[in-house]
Amino acid sequence: MAALAATALAAMLLPSPLIAQEKAEKPTPASIVQGAPKTDWVAIDPADLLVMTLAPDADGKDREVIIQLMPAPFSKGWVENIQTLAKAHWWDGLSVYRSVDNWVVQWGDGEEEGGTPKPLPTGLNVVPESQYVDETVAAKPEEDVIVLWHPRPELVDAYAESATFNDGWPIGLQIADGTRVLRRWPVHCYGSVGVARDLSPDTGTGAELYAVIGHAPRQLDRNIAVVGRVIMGMQHLSTLPRGTGDAGVYETLAEHTPIVSVRLGNELAEAPRFEYLSTSSDSFAAYAEVSANRDDSFYKVGAGGIDVCNLRVPIRPVKDD
Amino acid sequence: MAALAATALAAMLLPSPLIAQEKAEKPTPASIVQGAPKTDWVAIDPADLLVMTLAPDADGKDREVIIQLMPAPFSKGWVENIQTLAKAHWWDGLSVYRSVDNWVVQWGDGEEEGGTPKPLPTGLNVVPESQYVDETVAAKPEEDVIVLWHPRPELVDAYAESATFNDGWPIGLQIADGTRVLRRWPVHCYGSVGVARDLSPDTGTGAELYAVIGHAPRQLDRNIAVVGRVIMGMQHLSTLPRGTGDAGVYETLAEHTPIVSVRLGNELAEAPRFEYLSTSSDSFAAYAEVSANRDDSFYKVGAGGIDVCNLRVPIRPVKDD
Repeated sequence: MAALAATALAAMLLPSPLIAQEKAEKPTPASIVQGAPKTDWVAIDPADLLVMTLAPDADGKDREVIIQLMPAPFSKGWVENIQTLAKAHWWDGLSVYRSVDNWVVQWGDGEEEGGTPKPLPTGLNVVPESQYVDETVAAKPEEDVIVLWHPRPELVDAYAESATFNDGWPIGLQIADGTRVLRRWPVHCYGSVGVARDLSPDTGTGAELYAVIGHAPRQLDRNIAVVGRVIMGMQHLSTLPRGTGDAGVYETLAEHTPIVSVRLGNELAEAPRFEYLSTSSDSFAAYAEVSANRDDSFYKVGAGGIDVCNLRVPIRPVKDD
Repeated sequence: MAALAATALAAMLLPSPLIAQEKAEKPTPASIVQGAPKTDWVAIDPADLLVMTLAPDADGKDREVIIQLMPAPFSKGWVENIQTLAKAHWWDGLSVYRSVDNWVVQWGDGEEEGGTPKPLPTGLNVVPESQYVDETVAAKPEEDVIVLWHPRPELVDAYAESATFNDGWPIGLQIADGTRVLRRWPVHCYGSVGVARDLSPDTGTGAELYAVIGHAPRQLDRNIAVVGRVIMGMQHLSTLPRGTGDAGVYETLAEHTPIVSVRLGNELAEAPRFEYLSTSSDSFAAYAEVSANRDDSFYKVGAGGIDVCNLRVPIRPVKDD
């Protein structure tokens, strides 16, 4: 087999003494992430993690999916609903009931009860129609707005006036006069988790969720709420057989993947611990610049740009020293 | 289960009398494709198709993947090599040996012979390092260049100065003076098939191929040759278990997916027949505009733009009248 893109990927994911030696003076995205000081990493609160355990696969292997939930100000009631549903163990015994290639897998109430919807817990929020966050510019000096939300020069966006990262999340921006942010919203990338809904004005409760398993469906931005992203176990969703019914829903219950349990990370005996590379750190700035301008032993032509969904925010398990 | 994005997808993929009625005056990408006249569809020559038959899956179901090969001027010797390899039945008995989530699956010589490379057929081309096509502007009037390769206004590109479609394929452009195309190249999207290679100046023979199974890895453009795209059976590649060895290579031969055969479409008793929506047709122009500005019963906020990999070229089996 050819080393290929195998080589490229090895360079990205694995510490390779050979490659590190070859281009000691040519940083790669991986070398920058590996070299980022511990102080540039931000711990993720286990209360912001959702741990979904699927039934073991055909070989009896465990399947665990970990989702990081969207923080304020974009959480807007949906994430609180998801926490309520998780605490009520509402998803336990339900299923992944839909899978569409290059689109989404979706889970929740797969009509296990023969078409009778499972009752929702009380106290769920009715969520506003839009996931926008509009800036109250007068509330803070304009320079702060620019510093906080300034678009990254490497990012060229087809779906928003510009794009950036806020607190570790990819964000679309509407901008006035080239400088002032008017509106912000989270965007759909590979691995993003969103809230399934019926036709507008329905906005979904958060009980039915999907994960993106293909090219970023950015046309969904601002139309459906993004409430998180898969940070571990993505392969347990992306490799599920595609459904052959209408809209990729499985035709038989036997094809559904049972959900054993969904729990908040802080409810587990051993809370999962992850950290992300601060998107306001110098390390992330260097990572973005090098990612947009690849120049190393494998890449000969740098693109000069990158899209916001291809600049993956580095996330890793916390290792004890 | 919520209709969700199920509804959106149904609207995109299925003829839905309800939705069609609701927005009779609001075209969707699907309604435009469905309404495109037969004359806007271009037949794909079966000689440009590669039919890969994988071993049946665990349930004994057949797995067939059909790949459309890249035409001139971008084929540049690689595609001829692939045709030579297919005619020699070189891939028969080899395997899919690598799968990396949100990256690629890769096939060819998975060292079935215990590390001894399978000999290649004679007569393979040595392929030039770059997949660029530089324009000989003097050869045709400047207005022809503009008409032929003018970027689509809906497409905003992060990786090239602009992007368009040539003969049904997504293409990156380098442009001078805002009008004159200097250089063109095919781009990596979901489902694109490329030529695995070792470190440059190696350019690969075409014997080891990969298909993109995640967000468009556009940083590979101009660095690795794109030689085709999967047009049917993509799920047989995208759902393969991810490899757990270095760079996603499977750790054991038992995990490989055997390739039963790879044949050119015109060598089969029943040649596969497909057609694509002409990317220079009025139908495609309308499809692009509506895709970039969704406004229907599901989508409330149009993005105002789209990226070249999200504007999928419609391809369908030819149906006899």
